[in-house]
Amino acid sequence: MHLDELSSPVPVVDYDIARRNIGRLQQYCDRHQLKLRPHIKTHKLPFFAHEQCKAGAIGITVQKLGEAEVMAQTGLADILVTYNIVGREKAERLANLTNFVRVSVAVDNEKALEALGWAAGRASAPIGVLVEFESGGNRQGVQTPEQAVNLAKAILGHSGLEFKGLMTYPTTAKTAEFLQQSLPLFRKSGIEVPVVSGGGTPSAYHTHELAPVTEVRVGTYIYNDRMMIAASAATLEDCALTVLTTVVSRPTIDRAVIDAGSKTLSSDLLPPGQGNGYGLLPDYPDAIIDRLNEEHGLVNLERSVRKPEAGERVRVIPNHACVVTNLHDQIYLHRNGDIIAQLPVYLRGKTV
Amino acid sequence: MHLDELSSPVPVVDYDIARRNIGRLQQYCDRHQLKLRPHIKTHKLPFFAHEQCKAGAIGITVQKLGEAEVMAQTGLADILVTYNIVGREKAERLANLTNFVRVSVAVDNEKALEALGWAAGRASAPIGVLVEFESGGNRQGVQTPEQAVNLAKAILGHSGLEFKGLMTYPTTAKTAEFLQQSLPLFRKSGIEVPVVSGGGTPSAYHTHELAPVTEVRVGTYIYNDRMMIAASAATLEDCALTVLTTVVSRPTIDRAVIDAGSKTLSSDLLPPGQGNGYGLLPDYPDAIIDRLNEEHGLVNLERSVRKPEAGERVRVIPNHACVVTNLHDQIYLHRNGDIIAQLPVYLRGKTV
Repeated sequence: MHLDELSSPVPVVDYDIARRNIGRLQQYCDRHQLKLRPHIKTHKLPFFAHEQCKAGAIGITVQKLGEAEVMAQTGLADILVTYNIVGREKAERLANLTNFVRVSVAVDNEKALEALGWAAGRASAPIGVLVEFESGGNRQGVQTPEQAVNLAKAILGHSGLEFKGLMTYPTTAKTAEFLQQSLPLFRKSGIEVPVVSGGGTPSAYHTHELAPVTEVRVGTYIYNDRMMIAASAATLEDCALTVLTTVVSRPTIDRAVIDAGSKTLSSDLLPPGQGNGYGLLPDYPDAIIDRLNEEHGLVNLERSVRKPEAGERVRVIPNHACVVTNLHDQIYLHRNGDIIAQLPVYLRGKTV
Repeated sequence: MHLDELSSPVPVVDYDIARRNIGRLQQYCDRHQLKLRPHIKTHKLPFFAHEQCKAGAIGITVQKLGEAEVMAQTGLADILVTYNIVGREKAERLANLTNFVRVSVAVDNEKALEALGWAAGRASAPIGVLVEFESGGNRQGVQTPEQAVNLAKAILGHSGLEFKGLMTYPTTAKTAEFLQQSLPLFRKSGIEVPVVSGGGTPSAYHTHELAPVTEVRVGTYIYNDRMMIAASAATLEDCALTVLTTVVSRPTIDRAVIDAGSKTLSSDLLPPGQGNGYGLLPDYPDAIIDRLNEEHGLVNLERSVRKPEAGERVRVIPNHACVVTNLHDQIYLHRNGDIIAQLPVYLRGKTV
């Protein structure tokens, strides 16, 4: 079966491009003696998680317990949950996971550590714990080296929890700064820091220049998207995920309507100044998807000399691959347009 | 079971508020002799579609065939698909639907009409067709009254297709203008226009003043959301859908991280000038969800005197209810916090 036979809108993945992306970053990591622990948020597929591990990854990264559970049930062996686990119900689920997989968790506060301690008391194996620190992302993580050391000490006070090291997102110049200040403090306290985990596709190939991390967590590199092109982290040829759409209306000379709206492409935009609209049309590069309704994509053709006709199939490279796979129950895998698998996105919607 | 026992993030719906919203608009429509045909895009649930019909709606509106199929399989009887059906595969699915339900479709171009004609040849019952016209939404629809008449004539040329009338979105002052120009043209051509279908929650209660439509298609009114509050179409007390979240980190004095990111709340923003951020926190009205990652909601607490603690449950009224229900496999229905049903969102992701 060929891609042309699929009903649109539909997300499709070029298998050869995805494999090339997996291989290239693995080689980089091997060359620089970095451990690779891919984040599955981009593909949400046990299939590709296994391919990444076969290529050399030491395990995977997930954000939520629901994702970890599916991956544990589909044969993955080593899972890092980079999220504060809060509350008894989640602590119990974390403890249950230790029956099946090696599991580690990130933490940045005492409240989450309380849940980890509770989980450790019910776990079948030690739970690895990394202290998350902030290094420029302004998201979360402890803010100072002292807080990091104190939280590590609190972790060491729990039997059943194993302090593994430090974790941040993304890897930046500030990561190096934080490590330079904090690693001596850890040494002074006699605490070993076997793992320093950093992440982010945009800076992935610069990790060795940026900071002394030991582990790279990246998600988007497997598919890439328009954001990665805008960040100079990928080219159009590196984009494995495409959404196939159909022009359902051409109400005016300068407007086409495609059957992919925010329920298909998401409303994610590029950072200001990096590009307009809700996706890239490789066959009509001067066209702009300048508005989305839930099921309508409004394509501005003013600057496009060629214009697609009603009924025509139009390819879209999405702005942000990760949120697109989260909208779809399945993706189709192809080689040169021939479909080789229909993959249910088993981790879709696992936000709990 | 009480809402407090649910693991977060989780969308919950207040049954009494939803029913009040259903009843109030039905009363308005009855008073003004308007037919109500709710759009199911907001709830995506056969359950509420049936409640809307029991309250007096003449049938439902869907956007995609996949939605129509689920509704047909769950007992709904009269379905309008307000979308151009393009291609043989979809035409066949449309024809199949006529075995089970009364089905009508909107169309604005010859290419889509081609598919409808093909479907009509295979259908078990006539397919109703409405001509979509544009009246200020700048989305799609024929642009002129002449185009509307010509497309109606083409529809009348197909046995098996039944010309039902006109359709637009949203209902605006321009709707009246278009009708004033086009209805005489239809009369002159001897073509009856039994249905004029308009829509949109923001203007729903002004329909009778705006334009001589016969039918009201609205979706959001059942749940409402922050957009509807911003558009003065609802108050906080009319918002039935809430997302329950948990504070998983308080990295700084002025920042909280909730466990709901763009995979839970979507990246939909309010129109410019109508409000900042990705949702309303009714318990912390001065807090702003000013950034979302996929699983992290970053809450700016600078202007909030009270500040939620790590581990605390925080309610969010989403910006846009329709895209939120599309992200979740199920919603919980409650009365005063007591859970009365767990409803799978059967129409979630039915974009094809």
